[in-house]
Amino acid sequence: MTKAVEFYFEFSSPYGYFACHQIDDLAERAGRETRWRAFLLGPILKVSGARPLASIPVKGEYSLHDWERLARLWNIPWVYPDPFPIATLAAGRAFYWLDDRDPKLAKQFAKAAYHAYFGEGRDITPVEVVADVAEPLGISGADIVAAVNDEQWKDRLKSETERALERGVCGSPFMFADGEGFWGCDRLWMVEKWLMDGGW
Amino acid sequence: MTKAVEFYFEFSSPYGYFACHQIDDLAERAGRETRWRAFLLGPILKVSGARPLASIPVKGEYSLHDWERLARLWNIPWVYPDPFPIATLAAGRAFYWLDDRDPKLAKQFAKAAYHAYFGEGRDITPVEVVADVAEPLGISGADIVAAVNDEQWKDRLKSETERALERGVCGSPFMFADGEGFWGCDRLWMVEKWLMDGGW
Repeated sequence: MTKAVEFYFEFSSPYGYFACHQIDDLAERAGRETRWRAFLLGPILKVSGARPLASIPVKGEYSLHDWERLARLWNIPWVYPDPFPIATLAAGRAFYWLDDRDPKLAKQFAKAAYHAYFGEGRDITPVEVVADVAEPLGISGADIVAAVNDEQWKDRLKSETERALERGVCGSPFMFADGEGFWGCDRLWMVEKWLMDGGW
Repeated sequence: MTKAVEFYFEFSSPYGYFACHQIDDLAERAGRETRWRAFLLGPILKVSGARPLASIPVKGEYSLHDWERLARLWNIPWVYPDPFPIATLAAGRAFYWLDDRDPKLAKQFAKAAYHAYFGEGRDITPVEVVADVAEPLGISGADIVAAVNDEQWKDRLKSETERALERGVCGSPFMFADGEGFWGCDRLWMVEKWLMDGGW
């Protein structure tokens, strides 16, 4: 039995957005499934004392330029959204509600929400927008709104974020391959090599 | 006339150490020379409000693990040095004194100083150690000590660091290829692709 590659992502993370286009293909090349895990970066940045990338002098400007450059290279739709970053509670809760029912559909939803935000520049903070994003996938918008306002899914996103922090997730995206952690879109090649080599 | 790839590095940066083993070969594959530029990361972290990587909760632990893993993968000698990080004024000033005389020898010196610190765990803060590192390369230790204490080379390292910051250098290593900036050992592949493609 092969273990799934775990893909931790924050909906407001550009590098998570770029990585979400690649992680499933990467895992498939290594004969693995993926397990996607939404989390909130805010509480993790609080522990590490970091600020959102775009607000940091010098690094922020570099990052903006880098996102545009990566989008052109990989031919991925890109709009620098405003506002940015955002609170992604609604998308995260909706993700787990879906993931418990149909993980494949949850991934499609996550990609659609990412696309709405970074591909079209739509603010996905409001639950109504999250519901709008879900409906073309055959998901009831009313069910999304109900799930996002349900204590069960509020708690779930919170506990998944706590679990991520306990496991050493220090940014988005973050991947686990056979228990080994890899941070960043820049390390997708290393995840694949780790899987292919069986570590080193 | 082809432009040199500029390689900015801080002597106390593990990722700079890893990159220094690769940058010249990379440039050669693209038909380019390299121009190495030492700088002090401290003043740049001050502007970005960041702390040294190893001192940041969660990220620090991840980084330690990552350095060991990269060293094994690339077969590069690695010792986690103590103290870390250090002030690299002596090595940086010695580098520019040498670079003005013989850029090739300055690169050899930089590699030797990096190896002493991260390959052998020797603290390269004291000028005497920097002189020791230089001598096997046929460089006079007494000349190194004199240069490190000379206002000219103190000013030079300072002004090169200021220039780096003005140009958007936000971490170590940082490369410029045809004016385009790339941050991190993780982006060496992108520097090469940029050179080969003529940008995108």
